[in-house]
Amino acid sequence: MAATTSDEKLLGLWASPYTTRVQLALKLKSIEYEFIQENLQNKSELLLQTNPVHKKIPVFIHGDKPICESLIIIQYIDDTWTNGPSILPSDPYDRAMARFWAAYIDDKWFPLLKELGGAQGDEARASIVEKIFEGLVLLEEAFVKCSKGKALFGGDNVGYLDIALGCFLGWIKATEIMTGIKWLDETKIPGLVGWAERLCSDSSVKDVLPEAQKLVELYTMSAGLEKGVSN
Amino acid sequence: MAATTSDEKLLGLWASPYTTRVQLALKLKSIEYEFIQENLQNKSELLLQTNPVHKKIPVFIHGDKPICESLIIIQYIDDTWTNGPSILPSDPYDRAMARFWAAYIDDKWFPLLKELGGAQGDEARASIVEKIFEGLVLLEEAFVKCSKGKALFGGDNVGYLDIALGCFLGWIKATEIMTGIKWLDETKIPGLVGWAERLCSDSSVKDVLPEAQKLVELYTMSAGLEKGVSN
Repeated sequence: MAATTSDEKLLGLWASPYTTRVQLALKLKSIEYEFIQENLQNKSELLLQTNPVHKKIPVFIHGDKPICESLIIIQYIDDTWTNGPSILPSDPYDRAMARFWAAYIDDKWFPLLKELGGAQGDEARASIVEKIFEGLVLLEEAFVKCSKGKALFGGDNVGYLDIALGCFLGWIKATEIMTGIKWLDETKIPGLVGWAERLCSDSSVKDVLPEAQKLVELYTMSAGLEKGVSN
Repeated sequence: MAATTSDEKLLGLWASPYTTRVQLALKLKSIEYEFIQENLQNKSELLLQTNPVHKKIPVFIHGDKPICESLIIIQYIDDTWTNGPSILPSDPYDRAMARFWAAYIDDKWFPLLKELGGAQGDEARASIVEKIFEGLVLLEEAFVKCSKGKALFGGDNVGYLDIALGCFLGWIKATEIMTGIKWLDETKIPGLVGWAERLCSDSSVKDVLPEAQKLVELYTMSAGLEKGVSN
């Protein structure tokens, strides 16, 4: 490998929340890396070689080792750079809860937000909106339990669930602008609203999260980011 | 809690591969527990209370702490009973690879085996069969990489991926009986065929895996196990 290239590389897309996750973990651990913006319409050889199974971003390359899927990458970073702040909770039960809710967000909740864009008819749309709010109420309960009265899911510091859910804040705000629906409603989910404000003003987070207005512009320009963007 | 009840409980179903996973992890760690067979047609209050989000088995209850989803439970068991043999690899990259392939098995490969039962028409069936074999070839490559020339995915000992894939061996063999298709074909996937034989004769595994013939009988009796059985 040439001396000018970084030993840590991230193949991603600035607007992909799964890429944002890895960027947040790397920032928290103060890891320098080379960010390689992928073109999903014309995937690079490097992406196809490093993620031959799914052919999707993000891929984190550490030396000659590629790691795929955002939550797995975060755990790898936490396991490898152990001298930085911990991302996963240290208690096994807290860790299990963090993994449970991260899986809920990826498998159940965020897919609803993506579905909303393609919903046909008022009834279908209303049904998805209701499910999104039901999910937010569950996540509010999760926040109360996981944060144990502190500022963030991770307690006093940004942790696994702060990253797993926080990466979507740009898209949550973007869909608020596009749909006129206020997801982050203080009367419904006061804990999460406060959490989102605190997280977005955190020094490790605020420069990494993509701006909602830029995401709206991107969404308006394209047919969406579905193709080739994975978790 | 009454003195007669066990401090460790598992809510599950003998035929559920996800339940088998937890049973395998508990056996490996020599943990005694109470097994509570669930009736998915009439879910118990305990199940609904301990997994209110998904209402699915397996749920492992440690004292008053419920943990849901089989792979999360296994990691919890490994993190909690640290004096037993390790289930996850100790090296961060090996751990990431084990997590990657476990997710592939759950999200991509095993759903194909379930799809096969409901496939309509020869063409649809042939397409799924082809994808199942393609997946097995990928898993063969994963075995070669992860096992590093040793007997099992976990090396010399039963590990995370041995559990994650091994739990399906009963169903793999049951579908061989029902369809006449030989999935575990030495000419195609010699590494995995040898692995399956070694794993099934391991003392921690052989009494836990459900018998293929019993699964065939169950499948023939019921319309399948889809409803309420999660990962």
